[in-house]
Amino acid sequence: MITLALPKGSLEEQTLQLFREADLGVKRTERDYNPRIDDPRIGKVKILRPQEIPTYVAMGSFDLGISGLDWVRETGADVVEVARLSYSKGGEGNVRIVIAVHRDEPIDDVSRIRPGSRVTTEYPEITRRYFEEIGIPVRLFPSYGASEAKVPDLMDVVVDLTETGTTLRRNGLKIIGEIMESCTVVIANRASYADPEKRREMEEIRTLLLGVLEARRQVLITMNVPGPSMEGVIAMLPAMKTPTVSRLHGIDFYSIETVVPKAGVNQLIPRLKAAGAEDILEIPISKIIR
Amino acid sequence: MITLALPKGSLEEQTLQLFREADLGVKRTERDYNPRIDDPRIGKVKILRPQEIPTYVAMGSFDLGISGLDWVRETGADVVEVARLSYSKGGEGNVRIVIAVHRDEPIDDVSRIRPGSRVTTEYPEITRRYFEEIGIPVRLFPSYGASEAKVPDLMDVVVDLTETGTTLRRNGLKIIGEIMESCTVVIANRASYADPEKRREMEEIRTLLLGVLEARRQVLITMNVPGPSMEGVIAMLPAMKTPTVSRLHGIDFYSIETVVPKAGVNQLIPRLKAAGAEDILEIPISKIIR
Amino acid sequence: MITLALPKGSLEEQTLQLFREADLGVKRTERDYNPRIDDPRIGKVKILRPQEIPTYVAMGSFDLGISGLDWVRETGADVVEVARLSYSKGGEGNVRIVIAVHRDEPIDDVSRIRPGSRVTTEYPEITRRYFEEIGIPVRLFPSYGASEAKVPDLMDVVVDLTETGTTLRRNGLKIIGEIMESCTVVIANRASYADPEKRREMEEIRTLLLGVLEARRQVLITMNVPGPSMEGVIAMLPAMKTPTVSRLHGIDFYSIETVVPKAGVNQLIPRLKAAGAEDILEIPISKIIR
Amino acid sequence: MITLALPKGSLEEQTLQLFREADLGVKRTERDYNPRIDDPRIGKVKILRPQEIPTYVAMGSFDLGISGLDWVRETGADVVEVARLSYSKGGEGNVRIVIAVHRDEPIDDVSRIRPGSRVTTEYPEITRRYFEEIGIPVRLFPSYGASEAKVPDLMDVVVDLTETGTTLRRNGLKIIGEIMESCTVVIANRASYADPEKRREMEEIRTLLLGVLEARRQVLITMNVPGPSMEGVIAMLPAMKTPTVSRLHGIDFYSIETVVPKAGVNQLIPRLKAAGAEDILEIPISKIIR
Amino acid sequence: MITLALPKGSLEEQTLQLFREADLGVKRTERDYNPRIDDPRIGKVKILRPQEIPTYVAMGSFDLGISGLDWVRETGADVVEVARLSYSKGGEGNVRIVIAVHRDEPIDDVSRIRPGSRVTTEYPEITRRYFEEIGIPVRLFPSYGASEAKVPDLMDVVVDLTETGTTLRRNGLKIIGEIMESCTVVIANRASYADPEKRREMEEIRTLLLGVLEARRQVLITMNVPGPSMEGVIAMLPAMKTPTVSRLHGIDFYSIETVVPKAGVNQLIPRLKAAGAEDILEIPISKIIR
Amino acid sequence: MITLALPKGSLEEQTLQLFREADLGVKRTERDYNPRIDDPRIGKVKILRPQEIPTYVAMGSFDLGISGLDWVRETGADVVEVARLSYSKGGEGNVRIVIAVHRDEPIDDVSRIRPGSRVTTEYPEITRRYFEEIGIPVRLFPSYGASEAKVPDLMDVVVDLTETGTTLRRNGLKIIGEIMESCTVVIANRASYADPEKRREMEEIRTLLLGVLEARRQVLITMNVPGPSMEGVIAMLPAMKTPTVSRLHGIDFYSIETVVPKAGVNQLIPRLKAAGAEDILEIPISKIIR
Repeated sequence: MITLALPKGSLEEQTLQLFREADLGVKRTERDYNPRIDDPRIGKVKILRPQEIPTYVAMGSFDLGISGLDWVRETGADVVEVARLSYSKGGEGNVRIVIAVHRDEPIDDVSRIRPGSRVTTEYPEITRRYFEEIGIPVRLFPSYGASEAKVPDLMDVVVDLTETGTTLRRNGLKIIGEIMESCTVVIANRASYADPEKRREMEEIRTLLLGVLEARRQVLITMNVPGPSMEGVIAMLPAMKTPTVSRLHGIDFYSIETVVPKAGVNQLIPRLKAAGAEDILEIPISKIIR
Repeated sequence: MITLALPKGSLEEQTLQLFREADLGVKRTERDYNPRIDDPRIGKVKILRPQEIPTYVAMGSFDLGISGLDWVRETGADVVEVARLSYSKGGEGNVRIVIAVHRDEPIDDVSRIRPGSRVTTEYPEITRRYFEEIGIPVRLFPSYGASEAKVPDLMDVVVDLTETGTTLRRNGLKIIGEIMESCTVVIANRASYADPEKRREMEEIRTLLLGVLEARRQVLITMNVPGPSMEGVIAMLPAMKTPTVSRLHGIDFYSIETVVPKAGVNQLIPRLKAAGAEDILEIPISKIIR
Repeated sequence: MITLALPKGSLEEQTLQLFREADLGVKRTERDYNPRIDDPRIGKVKILRPQEIPTYVAMGSFDLGISGLDWVRETGADVVEVARLSYSKGGEGNVRIVIAVHRDEPIDDVSRIRPGSRVTTEYPEITRRYFEEIGIPVRLFPSYGASEAKVPDLMDVVVDLTETGTTLRRNGLKIIGEIMESCTVVIANRASYADPEKRREMEEIRTLLLGVLEARRQVLITMNVPGPSMEGVIAMLPAMKTPTVSRLHGIDFYSIETVVPKAGVNQLIPRLKAAGAEDILEIPISKIIR
Repeated sequence: MITLALPKGSLEEQTLQLFREADLGVKRTERDYNPRIDDPRIGKVKILRPQEIPTYVAMGSFDLGISGLDWVRETGADVVEVARLSYSKGGEGNVRIVIAVHRDEPIDDVSRIRPGSRVTTEYPEITRRYFEEIGIPVRLFPSYGASEAKVPDLMDVVVDLTETGTTLRRNGLKIIGEIMESCTVVIANRASYADPEKRREMEEIRTLLLGVLEARRQVLITMNVPGPSMEGVIAMLPAMKTPTVSRLHGIDFYSIETVVPKAGVNQLIPRLKAAGAEDILEIPISKIIR
Repeated sequence: MITLALPKGSLEEQTLQLFREADLGVKRTERDYNPRIDDPRIGKVKILRPQEIPTYVAMGSFDLGISGLDWVRETGADVVEVARLSYSKGGEGNVRIVIAVHRDEPIDDVSRIRPGSRVTTEYPEITRRYFEEIGIPVRLFPSYGASEAKVPDLMDVVVDLTETGTTLRRNGLKIIGEIMESCTVVIANRASYADPEKRREMEEIRTLLLGVLEARRQVLITMNVPGPSMEGVIAMLPAMKTPTVSRLHGIDFYSIETVVPKAGVNQLIPRLKAAGAEDILEIPISKIIR
Repeated sequence: MITLALPKGSLEEQTLQLFREADLGVKRTERDYNPRIDDPRIGKVKILRPQEIPTYVAMGSFDLGISGLDWVRETGADVVEVARLSYSKGGEGNVRIVIAVHRDEPIDDVSRIRPGSRVTTEYPEITRRYFEEIGIPVRLFPSYGASEAKVPDLMDVVVDLTETGTTLRRNGLKIIGEIMESCTVVIANRASYADPEKRREMEEIRTLLLGVLEARRQVLITMNVPGPSMEGVIAMLPAMKTPTVSRLHGIDFYSIETVVPKAGVNQLIPRLKAAGAEDILEIPISKIIR
């Protein structure tokens, strides 16, 4: 049985939704401090700031945690990265930690940042290591939010998380460098991951979570096809897997059932119909485990 | 690739919901002015007042539009009516443009409206043409909303959209005539509709939208039936299509899967059970394309 | 055709949700007083206080009603209990009517309640009968809510509904006895229940409601299994029912479709996969009628 | 020091607002059960259902309470009526307990109610006494709300609280009699009221509460008036009290300051201006104690 | 007694707030159509679209109305402008009807708008007259909202109401001309205004409304000043009116009371204190009629 | 002219309310980053995290700032404390930084904290200095919120801000020590404060802010007193200042006007009335500068 730390705040809603769809719904008591998941593999659950989770997982306070890759790097926590989940603070897709200055600054590259510049960031460690590596001494000021609004009046340089750069640009900043990409990660304590029983449990959890994310991108389609049209219809289906075909009772018709990517299904259905398929049905799926 | 104008306001929520269920979900950027649909057939999308859409489609600013039939008539726009969608401002079903007067007026028919009456309406063109046709000269006042509240103090006659007439009656009005029925319509630019490629794309979109509306009225049922009961069960099923039957592995049981109208399924299930069917399942469907 | 009384207030949301999922959705007009259900078996529907429903059902104002068992007992209404539904005011599961006193009272049992004690309750009849039976004369004060806050300042004893006892404990009370368990019940008028036609309709409604409650605890899973793995996979499946198996077209693969309890499916899926099953799908179910 | 019971529910907001404006603001702890008022005259405070307050005050659980006159009568509690406050469940002004039947009933007077009629009410005691007095035997059913919706299907007669009768009329009922008027009352325990010290405290609280209600109906106006216009201006002012007049330093102008009813101030100001007053100011007042 | 039309929509909240503060609060019944003001000068009140109010006032349906100057001009209604109120759709201060084009258009002046341009506006009459006057023929399209989003795709020129121009700029537009300024106006029917009794009532209403607007910009300050400091303090006070000065009873101190602009009071108070004033109080005012 | 940093977050609402009442209302543009105050003494204004404000004021980025005393100490910023404002994160009154452990820990005093304990806090600097001073080496973990929920599972000791200790106790913690009291403070840059012109401006701002806080605790009362009762009434009034007394014109009555503490006014009014005062009015005050 494993213990689990889930992120509060900007990743919270998406993470809880993912667990809910995986039938690992988090039950929260009134005061929020002892949530539970009804699953024999999962013991204690806590919802904590993502900033603190990598440290707790590395210390062994939790076997498994979900946080941002940015906080894993900032804390320098020594953990195993078990999976990457395709969502982030910004929604779907990845985010980046970038370096930005005011758009009127006559520089386009980090190498031209003036020594002694005032730099504000919510990632002081990542930022310190970065400027040490590139050999430019700067003055670091920890930021507690809205960093982008502090340039140029209070600060010269901002190191901040962004998805599209829109907030930065709207505040008159330009991006002149990137330190790293970040996404949501499932992380494990090293010792827990070495324990075969716990590792199996972690991998089953991962399988379920990824099974939900996969299912969100697929649909089930079923259809009836007259014998003479079978070959043509089969040929149209995505090649991933042989479809499920059964001959219908008493007539020259086949039932076909197959999973296709959601992205293409609106293209596929009109073509299948033109090729002779009838009674095409589309059914939502909660999980796919291949 | 076609361009598309969707209606803002009273038809907006239902239209966006329909597109979402058709996997043609509208992605809206923050300022709302450049929404997108991820589908290779659909290019530029705008959400505009339904009053303006017929004119824009007729001018060629958009290939396809969704609006009310009332506004197609009011603007007199020369467009192709591609489909009628079974919802309207009032919810499901059609709405009507009616003529109403105060319930204390001693008239029951439009032919008895006094010449020179004060008439208020959000449809000045439809109303002008109508009174010209019936040959009664009236004074027209454009209304910007809540027309029903202006009779009898400010106005004598109201020409207004209504579903059930409740709002009119509650304001002490009675309906004495009807100008037209209205519903939600999919309209196309004439030139675009003549282009074979665009026409195919429009028809695929129509197929998908109608596929959702159809699926809302159906459910999938599956059941297991012992051999001796098969004939009786099959006979109970709606006659539209032969059901999907497969013989179960190793026993004298058949699996039947079929689509039936939602409206009747609560009647059907107890009867099927009584006839010997077991493990009857009801499954929601997102789209049906026959 | 039967008439139906549904409960307002704490049981309302769950009851309406249950009917909605059973495709017996309640359509409410603006003023709430004439809701309708589109089903040929159901005529007049009213949403009324659960306290009043047993009396109305016993009087014959309604054929069928949904209320709490507590109010059936409090009113002493002579009705038939048609079904128990697995939810209550407190959420899922049953609730209890308990007897509580302040935690500083030196008594642990109802037999030690002092004669003449001030007792407050929303159930004066149940409470009167109870204290008569155990032979302790007390002074009864009807409560209109928040009874737990009245001890010890205003009252000595509280008789109240509770699920877990948390609210009582948080107010410094301790439970020293229990009068009865309560849950949501479907009740019928005796004469209506004796009428064969009405009885059949009531039982069909019951079948549908219980069918939804059952389906909430199950999921449909389908999978493809290579011939050599079949026996192992089949052996893993819950023993309730033979699964639906069909041989796939042209290859040594079988399609299996079966319903399993939701509670176990997260355990089952990884094991099925390890045993060779592929393309495992999980599909939500709206109703199961066996 | 006196103890105080304030009403929960429909009178709560207005009562707490009144106490706040009287600088007797109720401070509520999180769980609501031990609110406090920072005033040396007021000890324990509870917020309870108005139905229960008269009984508690009569029993001596509280020295002073605020409830509706309806509940004082319903419970038959033996208490002293200390003051009437000019607001009620319905807003400002009084409410009435009336007798209503369906508008299609061919009766216009309570004397014509048929013996054996089904009567529903939230005031069973008041109603029982009333029908005994007028000598018509009826069947009483306690109502838990929305009584007006039960006629004519479930009940024949309703006895209910109403302000304007609108809700009754909208439900198709007509009022055929009135049992009593009701308003918000300040009530005292008889023994407490006989204690001179407690009585003084109760009267001071009453003075402050009525001082706020009075201030809501008045405004302070000040103006400067040239000597020759003084007589004319003074003559226009309401006669209740001599206004405060002071001669301005060094010029032949007088400053007049007086309290006038808010209801008339909009009529008065233009007349004062016409009579020669200048710099007329209207200033809000928090309390008036005459 | 006069009849009154108040504006619905963007001017509604500010207008109702102004009337409330003037003790002319609008009481609205549930259905909104027959609001009342408890004042002997005001009879029928309606809340109507500001677009329609000038026409109704000109026709004599109402004696007095409140609308925007823009709609007075658009409708060409022949009414008397009784007062201008210092708020508008945009908040405080005036708004303008401007002419805007896309910022990439190579023109900076209305004289360079190309003949035949597509122009959209919610003010077709004002716009038509304007382009006739400047002699440029254009195609006019009535807009039902969000005009700024239609350039450059659907339209070439927008004529729209704006306060600061921010919305236009954010949509990539630039302002190249201005047709008129607009504000909230009190307008009267010509015949009503010629009737001496109605005119007096209208002017009294105006006095009260302007009295509230004036009071929002002023505060009352009082202070005590020792005899020797009097001259210096008096010299600092705004010169508009002689302050109200009274000698305190029994000591060489004077009480000074005066109304000063809120805008300057924060500058004045420290200077008064430095000049010897003590116990300076700032007191809110509800109305000022000079 | 001075620049000003105001706190975002838990102190924001109360601080902006205070400035609004001081007629120094903050006007915020849509994006929030350039708020303005219309006052000639105040230039640039920013709303920033209170954690960052002391550093910015010390650096000279702002002349004046409002933050918590806790953050002044945590950052060690070298600033001038200009005033203390009587509100804090917790509402009115002060808050404390305390040391807490789980209630089951067998220790009651900080001296008994075990070396090596895990300590979590949002104040790592204050906490580090404190434990150095008392000579107990501990392991510090920065907390990003909800520190109280981490004991005893994740942490042994919490250093946290609290007003009443309720949140700590509800989480099973007990307070065993206190590091400091905190409140809201007005802080100034040392150099700015040494500049006579800026210092005058800062002191005027302070005067206005404290004038509002003072006015919240006082009311103005006026009354008329007959000559013979004057001495008795005057003797009852608080001794702080001579009241403003003027003799009424033409009768033996005096008008008395004085400021009294709100806290005592409800005691005072009944006594004044008993002593002969009439027409006692209580009037709200916006600012008091003595």
